[in-house]
Amino acid sequence: MIQVAILGLGTVGTGVARVMEENAKQIEHKLGEPLRVKTILVRHFKDGPYRRLMTDDFRQIEEDPEIRVVVETIGGVGAAYEYTKRALAAGKHVVTANKQLVAERGCELLELAREKQVRYLFEASVGGGIPILHPLTQCMAANRIDEVYGILNGTTNYILTRMVRMGTSFEDALAEAQAKGYAEADPTADVAGIDTGRKTCILADLAFGQQVDPEEVPMEGITGLSLTDVKIAHRAGYRVKLLGRALRLPGGGHTAYVAPHLIPEENPVSNVEDVFNAVVVRGNATGDVMFYGKGAGALPTASACAADVMECLQAGPRQQESTWSSGTAGFEDPMELSSRHYFRIAGTLSEAVTAFGNVEVLAENGETAFLTDSISGRDALRLSKDLNVRASMRVLA
Amino acid sequence: MIQVAILGLGTVGTGVARVMEENAKQIEHKLGEPLRVKTILVRHFKDGPYRRLMTDDFRQIEEDPEIRVVVETIGGVGAAYEYTKRALAAGKHVVTANKQLVAERGCELLELAREKQVRYLFEASVGGGIPILHPLTQCMAANRIDEVYGILNGTTNYILTRMVRMGTSFEDALAEAQAKGYAEADPTADVAGIDTGRKTCILADLAFGQQVDPEEVPMEGITGLSLTDVKIAHRAGYRVKLLGRALRLPGGGHTAYVAPHLIPEENPVSNVEDVFNAVVVRGNATGDVMFYGKGAGALPTASACAADVMECLQAGPRQQESTWSSGTAGFEDPMELSSRHYFRIAGTLSEAVTAFGNVEVLAENGETAFLTDSISGRDALRLSKDLNVRASMRVLA
Repeated sequence: MIQVAILGLGTVGTGVARVMEENAKQIEHKLGEPLRVKTILVRHFKDGPYRRLMTDDFRQIEEDPEIRVVVETIGGVGAAYEYTKRALAAGKHVVTANKQLVAERGCELLELAREKQVRYLFEASVGGGIPILHPLTQCMAANRIDEVYGILNGTTNYILTRMVRMGTSFEDALAEAQAKGYAEADPTADVAGIDTGRKTCILADLAFGQQVDPEEVPMEGITGLSLTDVKIAHRAGYRVKLLGRALRLPGGGHTAYVAPHLIPEENPVSNVEDVFNAVVVRGNATGDVMFYGKGAGALPTASACAADVMECLQAGPRQQESTWSSGTAGFEDPMELSSRHYFRIAGTLSEAVTAFGNVEVLAENGETAFLTDSISGRDALRLSKDLNVRASMRVLA
Repeated sequence: MIQVAILGLGTVGTGVARVMEENAKQIEHKLGEPLRVKTILVRHFKDGPYRRLMTDDFRQIEEDPEIRVVVETIGGVGAAYEYTKRALAAGKHVVTANKQLVAERGCELLELAREKQVRYLFEASVGGGIPILHPLTQCMAANRIDEVYGILNGTTNYILTRMVRMGTSFEDALAEAQAKGYAEADPTADVAGIDTGRKTCILADLAFGQQVDPEEVPMEGITGLSLTDVKIAHRAGYRVKLLGRALRLPGGGHTAYVAPHLIPEENPVSNVEDVFNAVVVRGNATGDVMFYGKGAGALPTASACAADVMECLQAGPRQQESTWSSGTAGFEDPMELSSRHYFRIAGTLSEAVTAFGNVEVLAENGETAFLTDSISGRDALRLSKDLNVRASMRVLA
């Protein structure tokens, strides 16, 4: 009998307990012995099926030698950070879906885990139930990873899908997402791109092996996005999607950022709709590989946590757990990155041509919408400084 | 310095040597020490960059205590089977892309590896460079896997894409695929569905934990496919794709088969074109998760082999390597499986209605093309026995 503890009993915590119960047969078959939730840390006791497992004292978990794995589902960096450190220090494996904690403190916690010969795993922190971090770090380990990008937030993708399909405004689509339970009452972390940004940092950390500080990563969400641009893009064969991108640069450095992009409709990512997520990993040997599925939800996320628990128990410490170093060298401003740019200006085509030279016109209707040739973000800003810019976005090649 | 050997120096073998050379920096960084190809087994010596590593005597590898991992790229079940057994018996890890050997002898070889405390890994045998077996067995380990299906053969998918897009006949599209090097001179294993069938067996073995014998799995390829049906399906909002499917049945058993299907255009798999592969795994917690990329090619396949080599060296033997048992219990005939069926008959709508009751007409033009309600394969056969059937296929729900 293998005993585990869960910290927190919100959506994910409850999901972990449920998955371990419902799929107990599969899990026992693979582990060779049954897995049991022994203790659940809560702030306030409440009635329910897990009442007899609850404690409000973390020491009951920390000091229990029977508990081998702790699943942290508290979220944030306060208590979650504290308890994770204490659990690792006590020689217990820790598994989490907490993207904020991993993005901000993952490197330090991995270091501590290594030192204590235990594991700190967080597959569920990116893409919910979609396997992405293990495939990136293990299955594609013999590649140089040149780029990782994707639709990493279901809420914003749902909103964008409604805008494209139904011509709904951002505000109305957000209200709809909230009514359906896809968006929080305070949707800031989602719509401002912060959630996508944290996940992008984790992907960048693992892809490039260097710490990418969320503070350094420009994050632009979809709050400023106008239906006008979504429609112009659509007619021209592009879909507007919020992407997190992490790229290796030709000079050897790397960059990361979050922003809405125009994606050509031939790219499979442009067809990712509603609350689905998709992550593309570009390896120098594999080419583009895409991982696709529902990126959120209690059960998918919980099943990824449960699989990480099994991984801790089956494989033991790896020779080199991770090559995520604490150094932050090599991070460059994404403004240096070149791509085609979309602009909508309150101005004429001739003003656009004067500023950018060659452009591809998408719409002329009082305002002018156009695509530039491939230029750096810095040049896009510099060349457009005398124009009356209503909207601008990068185009994914 | 970690020493490995490669058996065979064809496309994949050469690719493995190249990937280990080109990505040596990444690999060394992750392993903590350099990886070197020490010996390559060939049948005939030939000049080239690897000339000094060649041997034609397997004992030079078998008896070399420095060689820790053997990469088998011979293919087939003859020498490959023999050498794999001897390498495992000699206490060396073995990694392969050989789907025929894994489908036919995988269970026995895993058993031997377990006994010798080494690993037998074959991520590259399904989907080339796309991570699929590790995600299925590890990242989704806390799920009950209810279905795995996918486009598993790039050659046939290229042919089907040409037929849909350009209205090319099967014969012309095959000739084109051969001219481009996508199809072998003898394309039987591809177009008859045998390659897809072997990969489907491996997916079924791992998903359900029971040996699925390739001999028992009905495999229908695309040789009999008519452009007429591809066009009728396309106009009705379906794409015709060759699918391998492995399903858990409601009664607790499981089944597997290979056949062309009509796929609704809303399903992302319907948009998988050219030589791309896609595999969908349906877990009871995660829902549908899709893995997508180029399923073949020397470098992608080689990079998956190289990652498996790294996995052997990093993680050591797992507590329970695999739950693929040698029992074949639970396999049922896919004829029991229900789905909608597509038929084209030389006959009238009223004949179709007489045979099937309710039908959805797709085309009437001398012949009649229609979809039935959901019925078992057995009923589809029985109810159509008095009709003049020109074509029939299952519809993916």
